[in-house]
Amino acid sequence: MTGRLVIVGLGPGAAELITPQASDALAAATDLVGYGPYLARVPERAGQARHASDNREELARAGHALDLAAAGKSVAVVSSGDPGVFAMASAVFEAIETGNPAWRDVEVSVVPGVSAMLAAAARVGAPLGHDFCVISLSDNLKPWDVVLRRLEAAAAADFIIVLYNPASKARPWQLGEALAHIAKHRAGATPVIFARAVSEPNESIDITTLAEADPARADMRTLIIVGSSATRVVARGGRSFVYTLRHAELVEP
Amino acid sequence: MTGRLVIVGLGPGAAELITPQASDALAAATDLVGYGPYLARVPERAGQARHASDNREELARAGHALDLAAAGKSVAVVSSGDPGVFAMASAVFEAIETGNPAWRDVEVSVVPGVSAMLAAAARVGAPLGHDFCVISLSDNLKPWDVVLRRLEAAAAADFIIVLYNPASKARPWQLGEALAHIAKHRAGATPVIFARAVSEPNESIDITTLAEADPARADMRTLIIVGSSATRVVARGGRSFVYTLRHAELVEP
Repeated sequence: MTGRLVIVGLGPGAAELITPQASDALAAATDLVGYGPYLARVPERAGQARHASDNREELARAGHALDLAAAGKSVAVVSSGDPGVFAMASAVFEAIETGNPAWRDVEVSVVPGVSAMLAAAARVGAPLGHDFCVISLSDNLKPWDVVLRRLEAAAAADFIIVLYNPASKARPWQLGEALAHIAKHRAGATPVIFARAVSEPNESIDITTLAEADPARADMRTLIIVGSSATRVVARGGRSFVYTLRHAELVEP
Repeated sequence: MTGRLVIVGLGPGAAELITPQASDALAAATDLVGYGPYLARVPERAGQARHASDNREELARAGHALDLAAAGKSVAVVSSGDPGVFAMASAVFEAIETGNPAWRDVEVSVVPGVSAMLAAAARVGAPLGHDFCVISLSDNLKPWDVVLRRLEAAAAADFIIVLYNPASKARPWQLGEALAHIAKHRAGATPVIFARAVSEPNESIDITTLAEADPARADMRTLIIVGSSATRVVARGGRSFVYTLRHAELVEP
């Protein structure tokens, strides 16, 4: 008997940002699979098995989840944010395409979630209010040259740029180089947002500029938004907000 | 007495994709403001005023909502998808910066939502599984040259490309030209997804290729995802899924 697998987006962290569709999918599962800290966000439920794994073993985790589903379980793979944005969904489909042929018979679905970039943007205003690019700075799975080429293209065409996975202990220098490349095309006063642990109790949000952005402030849990030429910081009372104009003009590269 | 204004993302359409944070914000409002069809998604509540407006008058709608809030009301501005992605949030902040100075005293917040692109991606698999760009094809507020330059940059750097506002009665030819520009850099077999009314009862999702994509199939409610060189369509049983590999290689432009 073949079971089911659903890849569930838990949103950025806060329980009130988990959709009812995600909550229902979690409640219906016999088995939960995921990175430990994400699994810890899901309330315990009697009779439900939990399989925690390391964050770096995405393909192995996907295979484990598919084995459980192929054996008849109803499996929920949990992902932070949205599962389709630098998270578990792609790994599950890759495993289905390249792995055990029995996995192809598993019924698979994806429950979207509020991604970290949308939650971070909401906290400061509307910085993603115009055309934007989303780039992971991790070079674990792609050559750094690809990252740089994409940064150059995005910066030259005046996209707002969202950077996922900006830094980790193993990748300490990438963010500085990335910001330097963007700065070749964009003014020093361009707003830059460092958003960490968005919507969680230890959330921190810093609004700075491209000239003053300190790459050392980023870690694995930080997401960075670099504004376009149409992104504005507006001071008012105690707190500033950041938004990008809905209209754009030609900016010479 | 100055009131409050919250800009609420209703998600793509289905009630089970509205977050508890959004539901709570809607329940707490004295006044709801928004485009008629989006307001119609919010359950009626005794004593709550509803202010429906035309879809094209975003800045006027924002001003109306800010007037209500400045007069002491607790206002929720509703937006489809996520309010920060080609939706109401940017217009509200623009109104605050450029409009009636009294509006600066209004307490403003944004509740993020599941954006249409995330919901569309989830329905077919994980097409946004790698670096991607999000571009509105509307030239109401930006020169078409800016759109073309961004499409060229995104296509040449092998980003997955999400197209919002691909077509309307007033803008019938833009999508065809956009796809032709992308096709200069990308194989005819590149997967293309047309997703309409995602998560609603009349949802339709078509998976096609860049060579075969028919621009006439898109309308105001359609969102389009054009794959990168690493996006794959996998047939199995009755339904195919689409995903983008987590690893990338250098692709010659």
